[in-house]
Amino acid sequence: MEVLDPIHGEIQLNNAEVAVLDSAAYQRLRSIKQLGFSEFSFRGATHNRYLHSLGVCHLAGRAFDSIFKKFEFSSPALRQRLRQTTRLAALLHDIGHGPLSHTTEDVMPQLKDLKLKAYDLKKNPPNPERQANHEDYSIKFLTDSSLTKVLRENFSDIDPMAIACLVDTQLPAPTGFFRDGDWDFRPVLSQIISSEMDVDRMDYLGRDAYFCGTNYGKVELGWLIGNLNVHAENGVLHLALNRRALYTFDDFLLSRHHMHLMVYFHHKSIIFEEMLSRYLTSSDCTFFLPSDIEEYIQCTDHSLYEHLKTVDNPWARRIAERRPFRMLFEFHSDHESDRAEKIEKGLEKQGVPVIRASAQARLSKYHSGNPSAKNPTIYVIDEYDYRSRPEPIEQCTKIFKNYENTRSIDRLYVAPEDLEKSENFLAEHRL
Amino acid sequence: MEVLDPIHGEIQLNNAEVAVLDSAAYQRLRSIKQLGFSEFSFRGATHNRYLHSLGVCHLAGRAFDSIFKKFEFSSPALRQRLRQTTRLAALLHDIGHGPLSHTTEDVMPQLKDLKLKAYDLKKNPPNPERQANHEDYSIKFLTDSSLTKVLRENFSDIDPMAIACLVDTQLPAPTGFFRDGDWDFRPVLSQIISSEMDVDRMDYLGRDAYFCGTNYGKVELGWLIGNLNVHAENGVLHLALNRRALYTFDDFLLSRHHMHLMVYFHHKSIIFEEMLSRYLTSSDCTFFLPSDIEEYIQCTDHSLYEHLKTVDNPWARRIAERRPFRMLFEFHSDHESDRAEKIEKGLEKQGVPVIRASAQARLSKYHSGNPSAKNPTIYVIDEYDYRSRPEPIEQCTKIFKNYENTRSIDRLYVAPEDLEKSENFLAEHRL
Amino acid sequence: MEVLDPIHGEIQLNNAEVAVLDSAAYQRLRSIKQLGFSEFSFRGATHNRYLHSLGVCHLAGRAFDSIFKKFEFSSPALRQRLRQTTRLAALLHDIGHGPLSHTTEDVMPQLKDLKLKAYDLKKNPPNPERQANHEDYSIKFLTDSSLTKVLRENFSDIDPMAIACLVDTQLPAPTGFFRDGDWDFRPVLSQIISSEMDVDRMDYLGRDAYFCGTNYGKVELGWLIGNLNVHAENGVLHLALNRRALYTFDDFLLSRHHMHLMVYFHHKSIIFEEMLSRYLTSSDCTFFLPSDIEEYIQCTDHSLYEHLKTVDNPWARRIAERRPFRMLFEFHSDHESDRAEKIEKGLEKQGVPVIRASAQARLSKYHSGNPSAKNPTIYVIDEYDYRSRPEPIEQCTKIFKNYENTRSIDRLYVAPEDLEKSENFLAEHRL
Amino acid sequence: MEVLDPIHGEIQLNNAEVAVLDSAAYQRLRSIKQLGFSEFSFRGATHNRYLHSLGVCHLAGRAFDSIFKKFEFSSPALRQRLRQTTRLAALLHDIGHGPLSHTTEDVMPQLKDLKLKAYDLKKNPPNPERQANHEDYSIKFLTDSSLTKVLRENFSDIDPMAIACLVDTQLPAPTGFFRDGDWDFRPVLSQIISSEMDVDRMDYLGRDAYFCGTNYGKVELGWLIGNLNVHAENGVLHLALNRRALYTFDDFLLSRHHMHLMVYFHHKSIIFEEMLSRYLTSSDCTFFLPSDIEEYIQCTDHSLYEHLKTVDNPWARRIAERRPFRMLFEFHSDHESDRAEKIEKGLEKQGVPVIRASAQARLSKYHSGNPSAKNPTIYVIDEYDYRSRPEPIEQCTKIFKNYENTRSIDRLYVAPEDLEKSENFLAEHRL
Repeated sequence: MEVLDPIHGEIQLNNAEVAVLDSAAYQRLRSIKQLGFSEFSFRGATHNRYLHSLGVCHLAGRAFDSIFKKFEFSSPALRQRLRQTTRLAALLHDIGHGPLSHTTEDVMPQLKDLKLKAYDLKKNPPNPERQANHEDYSIKFLTDSSLTKVLRENFSDIDPMAIACLVDTQLPAPTGFFRDGDWDFRPVLSQIISSEMDVDRMDYLGRDAYFCGTNYGKVELGWLIGNLNVHAENGVLHLALNRRALYTFDDFLLSRHHMHLMVYFHHKSIIFEEMLSRYLTSSDCTFFLPSDIEEYIQCTDHSLYEHLKTVDNPWARRIAERRPFRMLFEFHSDHESDRAEKIEKGLEKQGVPVIRASAQARLSKYHSGNPSAKNPTIYVIDEYDYRSRPEPIEQCTKIFKNYENTRSIDRLYVAPEDLEKSENFLAEHRL
Repeated sequence: MEVLDPIHGEIQLNNAEVAVLDSAAYQRLRSIKQLGFSEFSFRGATHNRYLHSLGVCHLAGRAFDSIFKKFEFSSPALRQRLRQTTRLAALLHDIGHGPLSHTTEDVMPQLKDLKLKAYDLKKNPPNPERQANHEDYSIKFLTDSSLTKVLRENFSDIDPMAIACLVDTQLPAPTGFFRDGDWDFRPVLSQIISSEMDVDRMDYLGRDAYFCGTNYGKVELGWLIGNLNVHAENGVLHLALNRRALYTFDDFLLSRHHMHLMVYFHHKSIIFEEMLSRYLTSSDCTFFLPSDIEEYIQCTDHSLYEHLKTVDNPWARRIAERRPFRMLFEFHSDHESDRAEKIEKGLEKQGVPVIRASAQARLSKYHSGNPSAKNPTIYVIDEYDYRSRPEPIEQCTKIFKNYENTRSIDRLYVAPEDLEKSENFLAEHRL
Repeated sequence: MEVLDPIHGEIQLNNAEVAVLDSAAYQRLRSIKQLGFSEFSFRGATHNRYLHSLGVCHLAGRAFDSIFKKFEFSSPALRQRLRQTTRLAALLHDIGHGPLSHTTEDVMPQLKDLKLKAYDLKKNPPNPERQANHEDYSIKFLTDSSLTKVLRENFSDIDPMAIACLVDTQLPAPTGFFRDGDWDFRPVLSQIISSEMDVDRMDYLGRDAYFCGTNYGKVELGWLIGNLNVHAENGVLHLALNRRALYTFDDFLLSRHHMHLMVYFHHKSIIFEEMLSRYLTSSDCTFFLPSDIEEYIQCTDHSLYEHLKTVDNPWARRIAERRPFRMLFEFHSDHESDRAEKIEKGLEKQGVPVIRASAQARLSKYHSGNPSAKNPTIYVIDEYDYRSRPEPIEQCTKIFKNYENTRSIDRLYVAPEDLEKSENFLAEHRL
Repeated sequence: MEVLDPIHGEIQLNNAEVAVLDSAAYQRLRSIKQLGFSEFSFRGATHNRYLHSLGVCHLAGRAFDSIFKKFEFSSPALRQRLRQTTRLAALLHDIGHGPLSHTTEDVMPQLKDLKLKAYDLKKNPPNPERQANHEDYSIKFLTDSSLTKVLRENFSDIDPMAIACLVDTQLPAPTGFFRDGDWDFRPVLSQIISSEMDVDRMDYLGRDAYFCGTNYGKVELGWLIGNLNVHAENGVLHLALNRRALYTFDDFLLSRHHMHLMVYFHHKSIIFEEMLSRYLTSSDCTFFLPSDIEEYIQCTDHSLYEHLKTVDNPWARRIAERRPFRMLFEFHSDHESDRAEKIEKGLEKQGVPVIRASAQARLSKYHSGNPSAKNPTIYVIDEYDYRSRPEPIEQCTKIFKNYENTRSIDRLYVAPEDLEKSENFLAEHRL
């Protein structure tokens, strides 16, 4: 089947993949918007995780083909199995995403309620008492749900656990699944799915830019993917990039950074998140996410919005009626500042309720600390220099160092009816 | 306020218009998708009537400025009032749209239940017993709802009835509202809102194409709008087009025609419509649209989808679970054919339930019959020919005649579980 | 090597193809603009035949792959040889193009001066006394020039004559070159290069639209190419199209028609053509195109423009100094009219020199008369109808019939200094 | 007149501006490609300075309107005169550009030969013995040429000297021309034409990206222009930016930086530049640029390319025949390195002629040293903070500091026939 995508054009899917698309678990993603509340600031941003995930799947295949274009696998079947596994992990990387935004993780159950047997196989299993998150739901969907059945029926040579392994690097791999002779493919395939240069970002930057109508996220995707490569270090395969695309990589990181600053952290999205969080953590909240994975399939943006219409909580009402608090003050800096806090206190003394929200944008966490197993090194290969040998990417570009600092955005919001009064107070007191 | 739109870039709105945007009635349009079920065939098509209506409002202003660029109004205030009225009519032309698609008009109440006083003023008031449609709801919203109040408060010089007049040409205008000296502006302003060359189409063709990811609907908007003009016939102002944009007009009509054939009538959208209609007209349907206009604000795509999840009706379940009937047979022609009907009968004899659906695409209804009051003539003005005088557009282009015939698309659908059997039956009997 | 193309993204070329690109004959296309004088009306249209030809080559490969995706060749080598031949014919289809526009064919030598031995093999060799045209130069380049040498050296299994055969359908094919078992591939491969649905048009429509900045030429290329097919009739393979892309074909034809009417026939391009023609056919013209093919390589837009600067002829000066005659009158119709001629005579009586130019736009010549050997039938295949069998495309769409008529554009131009006087004359006499 | 531009859509020009466009001096820009030799690496880059300059003119008007949207001029006429002057300076900023690239400045005459009287008015007139550059030609065109006459005839209230003042900040302004009451407009208007945030860059980044087919240069132009502002410091008006567009400014600078690294400094463009320079500075070079400004109008890319075909110099021949030296080695770094030099010496010992070329890319020169008269400060205005006051932009963003270092690209090229031998030499000696 071909699917028409405004971003990548025609996307080809095989019949087994179409069966996954037709599953209830995957169809649910139609009703999960990619950017949650961002449609309140960028009205075109109504796109959903259904199409994003298809795009990621498509790019995973393209990335795989580029990385291994000169690589000799022991058999075409093995190559095909690893490629298909990577495409499936890409397609399903977001399958457990909660309604609307990460904020709804506030109302997820304890991990133990999910009965996630796959985690028992981990070396260091997580605390069963901790609150579950959307990644836990993803692993549950992949390894123990109606979706697992669909995967088994349609991909007889792929253990769903192998797909899960590319989403969660802590899970142990089915024996030999990612091996070809001396080579261990798991790290590089994991990096395709999740790393500083993963296909998730490659898809969402351009897609979000397209639907929002901005240019910030537009990157040189063809050149980046065409210059992906692989580097073997002690039998372990790592993701690599040809040096001639290194500035493209810089541009890619900066595009994401600017999308964060200008789109994802827009003050209107943030205030809706804040209000939702206030409702979800209030004592009268009646919205919960079920631990039963099949029931969870019913939990969508729609069901949450419909719920919000029916309750009396003031934050829920403000969201339902689109009467958000409005931004009074905004302060950007590279260092900590107590100005927002001071103004907040001043206003509260006046009896004005204030929401203070703070967002931190950082180009990347990649360079800080040593690369861990979770985050294998990306290498740079210079094909034009006889003396060069592959080097870790953080030694080849200064971008990580240049943008090491976190960018703080502090904001204060007040109710619309308090806005004028608050502005006058600020002007008068020169706060 | 400026709104960023992927189609038109930055759209400027004045504060009074923002108040309309913030109304509950207008916010409802966020949850009404522009193309209803089309997202099942064109996955990017998640855009809503909220942004479309903003785009139409924006184009109404541009069209007004282009049409009247050399026109001398008796005062700037009058010009501004007529321009603002046109923008508001454009912004609110879809305000009464039902959830998902026109199919939900099946469950609208009788007209009399809407208590639509504005209709009493009509020369030929409609039958109060007939079923209401979305246009009735639009007029109700404009003239007798919480939105009416917002309009009155924010536009002191514009009677909401005048806005309604540009949406419904049968309503009588407030005395003198559309007059400037000898000129009657109502026809040309109505044509901006609704005609063969209206701003509604100018917006949705490019917008639908963008979100679907197709080129069919992309037209030469700048040239078309830049060549709009006005022609006075007996004191009545008509919409006109400069001759040098006449092929652009042809291209515009054909773009819409091809969008119908390739996008709007896609077989997957059609089958969902058919299944919804079967549910809504079934005896056990429990979904109704309220006659109370404030309650109607709660009726959105979300609420309908959530409803469908809860009922037992087999059609509702098929929609909710995305298990549509699948297309078995398709037949395109310019004449009537009984082939689909014959196959249907053959299959039904075999005990196979069949849905037969038929769509008729026609380039335009404009040329057929005499221009009525509802549909004033569009003129063509040739600025380069000293002997020419404005002529009705249907006398200047052959496109109406060339595409006079209706294009019929007959389709048969069967349940997925009957598909193979049905295909074999067809192949065997060469039906 | 990959080449970045704003239209098709990254285009891949093999080393042998790069050798062709590097030839002096091909590099010459850098200095031949795709749209000649159109840059005077559409300022972005500075693109050249070098990149267009690369695009056509790229599309030829895509079309070949789509057409034969289910076809079983007797060997991969044969498939590859035919594919490569098609790509080369596409790459070189314009190689003999004269400077600037077809107008320079006026100063081409007699055919016999080209010493085109390949033509001796034709069944009906052309008259050696007739004037050569750009297609003759193309065949000369392919079969008997420095380029021929490059082709022979880099494509040992492809007779350059075979490439020529796909450009000129009258040339006899090298024995067995286009055969695989019972199948004759020449017709379908020729149709890829030149037919109502050839890759030349598929490239230039979108490309011209992009560089001009218009939407008219934007077509649904992915769908069109993806639905190309092949139909065998008596051992002869014909180009075919799946029925589901038939409206896309209509749209494709109409896009080209509107590009003709709105872009290619723009009044400013036409007047420059007319003035150039007047110079080239004047008795004092000193610009000639050489019959020696290696000397011809030096003949480019540049050399013609440089030449025009140096001569005294008034038309040449007008072009060189950009002082064209200006349009006074324009008349579009579907029938013959003598209006332009009458005005012309009237003006000439007043002593005003006039250029009368007339352009005829017709959707297609395909349907008129019987399909000849030059123009093999395109078939439509309906994969969804058990009773259908492939039918000639002109029986499946009414577009040919609807647009059978020629659209005439008659124009009159006068010198800028005569414009006002002429306008007054027209206004006064109501001509 | 409206001009269709693929970048900005329809550009409106008044009749007086059209007269400037029609001048021989301006028409010459049709034959000066915007990116010189870049079409050898980015084949779509055939766009010229003619259309770029139109785009800059258009943006100058938009920038002016945005900067002064709340500013009260003493009269509409004064506002209009300053706006028109700015548009003309933008339109003509490149008018003296040499053929192909800055490399042809090598064959410009001495400054004194230009007889540039305007320079006599400067406080510190330049040395008449120094070689002229393209800016000198621009001032000559503006103040003492056939173009000056066109300007005087069409803009009676604008002294051409005032236009020249916005291109060359050292020229003294006509008395009072840039004054309105207490305000001096010259600095801010100069900044529109030339500064870190000028309309030249705003146009060429997006335009070059479009024609090359890359995304690097795509910036958020609407937001940037919409947030331009003005700040008065001691009666002098400076360009300013609203804080909410500060990241957009960062993105704008980085886009340009990446265009330099990935497009403008592409190794193929560089080698052509190097070869041209070798020819122009060789003793047998016969190409000179005339000091007579009317003769200079004949000097275009065309005339240079045609010249190169006719001479025997080996570098000229290589360019004419497209047989450039090919890249052997490339080294990017943030510090000086002698590696390229060492390899060069090694190869030369082997008798291999080498071209060593080095390019330096730096984000900006703005922040280094004190702002001079030539480079007035840009301010940032925070409209949302009651305590803030306008600050110099270099104190508001860290981008200048982060990218303070120059990025060096060292390259070695050898003749194609020496390439294999040289590669072997490098591989063997591990240089």
